Amino acid sequence: MNQTESRNTPNRVITLITDFGMEDPYVGMMKGVVLSAAPGTVIVDITHTISPYAYQEALMAAVSTIPCFAAGTVHVVVVDPGVGGDRRIVGIEWPDTTVVLAPDNGIPEGVIAQLPGVCRVIEIVNPAYFRHPVHATFHGRDIFAPVAAALATGVPLSDMGPAFSPGDLTASLIPSVRELASGGFEGGVQGIDRFGNLITTIPETLLLNIQTAGDGCCIRIGDVCIDALSDTFSSKPVGDLVAYPGSRGWLEIAVNQGRADERLGAGIGTRVVVQRLGRV
Amino acid sequence: MNQTESRNTPNRVITLITDFGMEDPYVGMMKGVVLSAAPGTVIVDITHTISPYAYQEALMAAVSTIPCFAAGTVHVVVVDPGVGGDRRIVGIEWPDTTVVLAPDNGIPEGVIAQLPGVCRVIEIVNPAYFRHPVHATFHGRDIFAPVAAALATGVPLSDMGPAFSPGDLTASLIPSVRELASGGFEGGVQGIDRFGNLITTIPETLLLNIQTAGDGCCIRIGDVCIDALSDTFSSKPVGDLVAYPGSRGWLEIAVNQGRADERLGAGIGTRVVVQRLGRV
Amino acid sequence: MNQTESRNTPNRVITLITDFGMEDPYVGMMKGVVLSAAPGTVIVDITHTISPYAYQEALMAAVSTIPCFAAGTVHVVVVDPGVGGDRRIVGIEWPDTTVVLAPDNGIPEGVIAQLPGVCRVIEIVNPAYFRHPVHATFHGRDIFAPVAAALATGVPLSDMGPAFSPGDLTASLIPSVRELASGGFEGGVQGIDRFGNLITTIPETLLLNIQTAGDGCCIRIGDVCIDALSDTFSSKPVGDLVAYPGSRGWLEIAVNQGRADERLGAGIGTRVVVQRLGRV
Repeated sequence: MNQTESRNTPNRVITLITDFGMEDPYVGMMKGVVLSAAPGTVIVDITHTISPYAYQEALMAAVSTIPCFAAGTVHVVVVDPGVGGDRRIVGIEWPDTTVVLAPDNGIPEGVIAQLPGVCRVIEIVNPAYFRHPVHATFHGRDIFAPVAAALATGVPLSDMGPAFSPGDLTASLIPSVRELASGGFEGGVQGIDRFGNLITTIPETLLLNIQTAGDGCCIRIGDVCIDALSDTFSSKPVGDLVAYPGSRGWLEIAVNQGRADERLGAGIGTRVVVQRLGRV
Repeated sequence: MNQTESRNTPNRVITLITDFGMEDPYVGMMKGVVLSAAPGTVIVDITHTISPYAYQEALMAAVSTIPCFAAGTVHVVVVDPGVGGDRRIVGIEWPDTTVVLAPDNGIPEGVIAQLPGVCRVIEIVNPAYFRHPVHATFHGRDIFAPVAAALATGVPLSDMGPAFSPGDLTASLIPSVRELASGGFEGGVQGIDRFGNLITTIPETLLLNIQTAGDGCCIRIGDVCIDALSDTFSSKPVGDLVAYPGSRGWLEIAVNQGRADERLGAGIGTRVVVQRLGRV
Repeated sequence: MNQTESRNTPNRVITLITDFGMEDPYVGMMKGVVLSAAPGTVIVDITHTISPYAYQEALMAAVSTIPCFAAGTVHVVVVDPGVGGDRRIVGIEWPDTTVVLAPDNGIPEGVIAQLPGVCRVIEIVNPAYFRHPVHATFHGRDIFAPVAAALATGVPLSDMGPAFSPGDLTASLIPSVRELASGGFEGGVQGIDRFGNLITTIPETLLLNIQTAGDGCCIRIGDVCIDALSDTFSSKPVGDLVAYPGSRGWLEIAVNQGRADERLGAGIGTRVVVQRLGRV
């Protein structure tokens, strides 16, 4: 490892998403390992209160924050019910050198589906970059942290193990987005927040394109049709369904002061269609 | 913007106070925007668990932490029930270049009342420093974060928009402190902690001045008089009222193992007077 | 103080363990004091949700994280029911210049018992390094933070006050580990997690040594004997007792989907013995 050689460029930023909680010292242990190998690295906590093992929550947190960070950031996602078993640990990389490290439990596939353009998928197996002895129940400290530190100091991802095809990644349950022949878009529900609001996979940028073109749209979920986009969920009468561009960057569907998941019988994976209506 | 030019001085520290909570990725998104524009900036979380929209809590957190930070720190307060409406975003600056960025909902006026000497009040309107497109429900990411990053790298606050008079700021409900002709001080309750203790606006430094001069004092709230200062709230019998210099830096009033707010019928804004008694 | 002189070496990392919680601005105030005196210092939050005054929890967090950090890190532990009273504040140092600052309430003695080799124990009394006026209820901000900042910039611990003997430290209730004549080890319970699992003081490295030598072992607690080590707590039938190397780095004892503390009538300080059985 060359982490300690003198370098003039600052280390890459590392972000952390885990389900380790705020009470236990596990996150602190990971940071100690990173800072020992890569002094001066800026580490940003995205969240550590993902529900235990809820990889969809972690995926949503990753996809919504990655675009806010600079090229070359190393995003580490440790929500890993299979830790110590035979699931793979994977690194995926974009041409701008941004990297995501995560267990192959749907997170890498889901990230790629929503942030296209990945140029490299690597299985993390090179023990030269691990902390030894590797503890069967704490790969966060013994694999993810030291590998992220090495990447932050400039070690190439390709040193960490063999490349394989994105098509061999474990699929997430999150529906990807595709353009319809009619000019609209089809996606699905990727998450439900604590108010029962549905967060879809349809990016607000697609909605803005429709609005910029002067066209209208309606949003269809199951046999229900919401007839227009609103600016915020409080812009409709109490009890009404409302579709709006949410703060995380995707189309969201809510019931003003109610629960959209119960009203619509919707869950993660439920299909959502934006129909383009032409000039309004 | 010149954020990326080569500079020899380190960036100014940025602190964050929000009501975004610890579960969602919103704070992480703000940090990504800051670090993209101003690499290497040290960002300090003061708290993200302000009760939703409780600007008084945020104000108290800001006023108690600002004096602990170095000159030139950029303090960002995003507790903003009016986000996306027509409320202003404001930057206030002291001669030592310390800046507070906050919505004009009482926070800037309240900070100025307790930390006097502000030399500049600016309305933040220059879109050259915003992240585009600006999302109507997330000015934290799209306005506060990139403006703070620009300030951290040395852009002057005056570049962000026009100056206006502090007298035009929205008033907070927090009573300011004034000296009485009799030599005492009048202030009020600015916050109530989870034990029912009253945190006043009267700085402990004023109390220390009285003690240093060898004088006594009594504390009057409503028609109740507390006859002396104590060192801590546990220095009186259980159930007694006690006035003491609190850890946040202000006079506090408590009931030992009881609730002072209920005993005294006091709330935010209730008037409190420190009467100077002469040598004791 | 020489904190501000020009230096080419980066500051030492500071870690924080407190019971201040995530809601109040106390931790932020400490960080402001550190960054004012020692700009650029990397500060790592280990946890701030230690149960109020629970020094054993803080001790366990400290001992499990210290080995993950680089030599020279300054670990600050402020869980301090005696703040403002006559308890001492203590700095302990290892030959690699790692330092722990903590009140003398069992934490320093407990750290030394589990991480041997300390070369210096200092009482922190030099007011030249304090923030004045020192507030009787907030030594975290006024003593711990500025002293840690001074250490981070290179001031030697010996400048902070007189040395004294480790034997004069207040004893913790945590049982230390000793080797038995029979080749096994005796330790005890140092903590109980929220599932009722017992965290012992016996390091997993000792268990690995036994396994590497090809020997077996059994674990005795009270009059119960667990006949082998397991890899994880889910490797035995529901309701069975299981002993396994835990993620924090010590032997743990659990009941699969039950509470080991209730089953065994065990608490902090309960004796645990690992008996070496010879080749298996």
